Amino acid sequence: MRSFFRKSLALSVVFSAIAAVKFPAESRADEGMWLFNSVPKSQLKSNHQFEPTQEWLDHLMLSSVRFNSGGSASFVSSQGLVLTNHHVASDTLYKLSTPENNYNENGFLAATQAEEIKTPDLELNQLISIEDVTSKVNEAVKSNMTAQEAAKARQAKMAAIEKESLDASGLRSDVVTLFGGGRYHLYRYKKYTDVRLVWAPEAKTAFFGGDADNFEYPRYCLDVTLFRVYENGKPAQIDHFLKMDPKGAREQDLVFVSGNPGRTRRIFTHDAIEFQRDIALPRTMNLLRRREVLMQQYGLAGPEQQRRSKDDLFGIQNSRKASTGILLGIQDPSFTANKKKQEAELIQSLSKDPKLAPLAKAWDQIRDAQVKRKEYLTKGASLRSQLYAKAEMLNLMASEDRKASGDRLREFRDSNRESLEQTLFSKAPIYEDLERVVLADELSRLIDDRGANDPLVVAALAGKNPKQRATELVAGTKLIDVEERRKIAAAGTQAISESKDPLIVLARSLESEYRRVREATESIEEQERQAYAKVTEAKFAVGGDSVYPDATFTLRLAYGKVLGYETEGKSFPAQTTLGGAFEHEKLHLTKDPWVLPTSWHAARDKMNSDTPFNFVCTADIIGGNSGSPVVSRDGAMVGIIFDGNIESLTADYYYTDNVSRAVAVHIAGVLESLRTIYGASHLADEMGR
Amino acid sequence: MRSFFRKSLALSVVFSAIAAVKFPAESRADEGMWLFNSVPKSQLKSNHQFEPTQEWLDHLMLSSVRFNSGGSASFVSSQGLVLTNHHVASDTLYKLSTPENNYNENGFLAATQAEEIKTPDLELNQLISIEDVTSKVNEAVKSNMTAQEAAKARQAKMAAIEKESLDASGLRSDVVTLFGGGRYHLYRYKKYTDVRLVWAPEAKTAFFGGDADNFEYPRYCLDVTLFRVYENGKPAQIDHFLKMDPKGAREQDLVFVSGNPGRTRRIFTHDAIEFQRDIALPRTMNLLRRREVLMQQYGLAGPEQQRRSKDDLFGIQNSRKASTGILLGIQDPSFTANKKKQEAELIQSLSKDPKLAPLAKAWDQIRDAQVKRKEYLTKGASLRSQLYAKAEMLNLMASEDRKASGDRLREFRDSNRESLEQTLFSKAPIYEDLERVVLADELSRLIDDRGANDPLVVAALAGKNPKQRATELVAGTKLIDVEERRKIAAAGTQAISESKDPLIVLARSLESEYRRVREATESIEEQERQAYAKVTEAKFAVGGDSVYPDATFTLRLAYGKVLGYETEGKSFPAQTTLGGAFEHEKLHLTKDPWVLPTSWHAARDKMNSDTPFNFVCTADIIGGNSGSPVVSRDGAMVGIIFDGNIESLTADYYYTDNVSRAVAVHIAGVLESLRTIYGASHLADEMGR
Repeated sequence: MRSFFRKSLALSVVFSAIAAVKFPAESRADEGMWLFNSVPKSQLKSNHQFEPTQEWLDHLMLSSVRFNSGGSASFVSSQGLVLTNHHVASDTLYKLSTPENNYNENGFLAATQAEEIKTPDLELNQLISIEDVTSKVNEAVKSNMTAQEAAKARQAKMAAIEKESLDASGLRSDVVTLFGGGRYHLYRYKKYTDVRLVWAPEAKTAFFGGDADNFEYPRYCLDVTLFRVYENGKPAQIDHFLKMDPKGAREQDLVFVSGNPGRTRRIFTHDAIEFQRDIALPRTMNLLRRREVLMQQYGLAGPEQQRRSKDDLFGIQNSRKASTGILLGIQDPSFTANKKKQEAELIQSLSKDPKLAPLAKAWDQIRDAQVKRKEYLTKGASLRSQLYAKAEMLNLMASEDRKASGDRLREFRDSNRESLEQTLFSKAPIYEDLERVVLADELSRLIDDRGANDPLVVAALAGKNPKQRATELVAGTKLIDVEERRKIAAAGTQAISESKDPLIVLARSLESEYRRVREATESIEEQERQAYAKVTEAKFAVGGDSVYPDATFTLRLAYGKVLGYETEGKSFPAQTTLGGAFEHEKLHLTKDPWVLPTSWHAARDKMNSDTPFNFVCTADIIGGNSGSPVVSRDGAMVGIIFDGNIESLTADYYYTDNVSRAVAVHIAGVLESLRTIYGASHLADEMGR
Repeated sequence: MRSFFRKSLALSVVFSAIAAVKFPAESRADEGMWLFNSVPKSQLKSNHQFEPTQEWLDHLMLSSVRFNSGGSASFVSSQGLVLTNHHVASDTLYKLSTPENNYNENGFLAATQAEEIKTPDLELNQLISIEDVTSKVNEAVKSNMTAQEAAKARQAKMAAIEKESLDASGLRSDVVTLFGGGRYHLYRYKKYTDVRLVWAPEAKTAFFGGDADNFEYPRYCLDVTLFRVYENGKPAQIDHFLKMDPKGAREQDLVFVSGNPGRTRRIFTHDAIEFQRDIALPRTMNLLRRREVLMQQYGLAGPEQQRRSKDDLFGIQNSRKASTGILLGIQDPSFTANKKKQEAELIQSLSKDPKLAPLAKAWDQIRDAQVKRKEYLTKGASLRSQLYAKAEMLNLMASEDRKASGDRLREFRDSNRESLEQTLFSKAPIYEDLERVVLADELSRLIDDRGANDPLVVAALAGKNPKQRATELVAGTKLIDVEERRKIAAAGTQAISESKDPLIVLARSLESEYRRVREATESIEEQERQAYAKVTEAKFAVGGDSVYPDATFTLRLAYGKVLGYETEGKSFPAQTTLGGAFEHEKLHLTKDPWVLPTSWHAARDKMNSDTPFNFVCTADIIGGNSGSPVVSRDGAMVGIIFDGNIESLTADYYYTDNVSRAVAVHIAGVLESLRTIYGASHLADEMGR
């Protein structure tokens, strides 16, 4: 379910449809989510008189952290302190919470290291190296292969490269598909799986202004949380961590953002965009609104239900609001007209060179792929519930583990086993009543998608209505128990195949259709990969190497200026202050969601009200960048990204720096609040050391 | 827009999927929404030892009132007092409210008749007579006509019958299509258009428990409001009004419900049900959730926005919750299996009689109609906004008024002109900011439905994105002003055709597609009408005359027992009390929406806590019945319908009395609260006199 409603994809930035017309390319000076092995040095030098050294880049890369659950972060002390957003941490805070201790709402502070709480299933990644393996991966694909054969051969090759790297280095090794298939790079990560909660503020300040203020500016949010990574039961010793620069991030300062943007679609051809605009995104939004209303209804039952559903609800509302902005942007006729024009010009350029001309076929291949995508859009044979996801994973595992690693579905490859088990055996609570509600709705959704007479649906319902069937499934399954999952997995493929657990039986009955659809989808993706490889070749040929790939939830470097902006006659300052939070509260009559926690009111006289709190900059970011460190020319930390303004929501497809802004918590605000509000001077002192 | 989200269709009752299997036909003794000219006398006699006289029936019919905005009511005094639900009145309360006087939230009491407030656009109907005109209507249709020709001929004939009746009687005259086309009856109504608000309680008690308690039981809601009808500036003198029986409605009592159920689909063949289940209802729910989330987001902006959107939001949530229940019911495989079996048996019976055998073709015709329906489902060429609805009406009027009455689109027929103008020239406020939001979303929805490259969509957007376009349209139109609408309409067809108002221009550009789709849809409806006429003939032939037609928002008589019930091991009492409301509040920690108004707390010691407040009965009702009087054997009022429990939500397709219940406000609770809480003894005294 997280992959569907991933918060990492929710924070979405950068393209205003109006600006696309008004502002020519040359004004988009700070565009780009650059690979750390391909930084635009000449651009940085000419626009910002800055020349990063390799040492500067390596230090920033090694200080950066990825939350595999969907977000970014950084090391901020030699003793393993990790700083990320509260909304990146909230998934974990929610899993740690109980009816008695609601850490997500009320916050948490470990007075000593002994009090730091171990989290159930976090995996943090530190990127160690990048290697170009494009030719190795492409070698596996022969020209006479069908798309389906090519997808399998390519996947087997990638799994082999990863396994070889894992065995040689002991590091998590992922082959990343860049430029939609134009390049393949091998990313090696050090993994941290013993991650403990150190400090979190109250949700009231982390998400001050709630859904109403989300994607808005000015903001006054302490959207931060501290974790600590451990190795062998002790705080990990970290060589590369960020120094603090609380004075930095002043208007006009050049700043850098190092994080993991989740997904952009800037390479998309206009056919692919039209498919998103007219088919895919409207469907996604229907599903998001469906789940939003479902969670709201579930939460009406009482405060405990509200607690159980709040984190999901917040993630869903976040995605829904982001998607609304993205859709509005690509629904602008001038955007698609502009895109078409650019494509026509590119294809025209290609036609002048007989060697390049055949690349133009790529656009037809992508158009064709969209037709196929449409056909499979409602044909998924899976259910988006936590319990079903476990059942499906266990059931697939039974047959996948009989195959060689390279032949398996990608998530079952040997090099990913540890991460897979981290998810499968997570101790995070699963609530039966919530699962009943979600499963019933998912079964109902299956009917919507396929019609109730579809044999797969008939089998899934087993003669019951969705509600009755969900009740029966949840009552009958034992998968809610982690030990039961371990037992089933450990018992091996034969035992899984013979399991009588009703959810595993259900997953088994959907399996063949699930595999058929997945295979078809992966073939379509391969067709697109091959086509986008050509589009990339064409862009490199015509545009030179000042090209960055679409976001892939891997580490990127973005940069820009700290800069206020004006829109609709209103002007927005580059920074806000701690004191401003109280004014903002007053302006909204201290009504939910504009109620600061009591800790803030108690500390009001102690704090320096003029301390910078939130700020905006022009860096090119998107969902997944949440929690990214913002650093100065000196590589010291000046802030932490937590949002993009509403104008930036279409960054998925286009960047502009007209009024689009990334929104960050100022590090000075973090340090001041730790000291004066949270009685955590020891943490403030540790940061940067 | 009201027709899309009609509250009258929201209150939906009666069929539990489980019960359908467990309980055979003979236990559904109290099934039926009976025509007043075809009451099941033998059934009433044998099951309840009750024989209504014609006088009894006429008095109840003439005491019943229909709210054309979507609900039911009754005359309760000789001086024109009309009692209905607060949630039927809320549309009007909302229209009368201002930021300063929020009658919907805070209630209203006219101390004297002079203080009673005139409502902007209510039309109340009192049914005077019913006449069977089936043969007249069918005469117009010749066997060699296409469906399209037949639809037009039938419509022209109906308009002529209505016009003739209007001219002869001066009464509103509607030809009502019954049994999906099996019968046509002419209904004559006395209209009341000078309707004044007398008393409304606070929303907090009328909708105590909010969306969470909606469709639940036990309930504690004072969901009532009093209006008064005027004629010639004075309270109308009413001959037929209900006496009060505050002692009535005790457990096991036989009670009658006289009201206007909005729509049921019990005649639907399984193909039509499958179309609803797999296609139509899922789409409706997507649209409802879309509007629900949109209104919630709009309301986040502040208390005034919340006030402006609250009534719509409530109606939408009500419909969404009802639709969820309906869908769940028809998603039950045993329901459709049962339906198929019954159909097969009926067709089998027909095949034995050569005269009846050809009727079986009807099922094929209905199946074929569903395929056509699907094709047109997303092809509507209209926008669900208040301003656009006015523009569309004015624009169509321009050409329709050039035609003979019988040839016009149905709503423009002469006999309906007064009602049409009541809507078109309503002084109800239209809020520009809300219209911008709604219109932008509707334009975006048009893209979802047709794709942005559809020529109609391209024309509608005029090169802008939906938000920009909506802003431009609302800024440019003058239709928000009632006088402007009057002026345009009065200037005649030529002036309308030449209007430069951007919304009228937009309506004009969508007009030809609107007409094409409407004509196609009306042809499909005619095809279904002819088929359902055959299905009805088959049912009469096989089942005798103990058959009632599906609901058509016309007056029906239902009956049943006041009866508690048990489900899932819990037992639900037949009645609740005023005192129980305070306990219910306490049980929910006095948190919104379980907060009784201060007037209740202030009057707590004065009131008799044991007074019956809400009760349940087995009568067969559905949305539109809201506000229906519940009367005793003596024809005296014992309560007023306001809801159905969650188990009753599938009444759209099926009735059962297992645990499905209609929920009513007890008249004793109404009278006691008028006297002790609202200081309105004069109204309590007037009621029944």
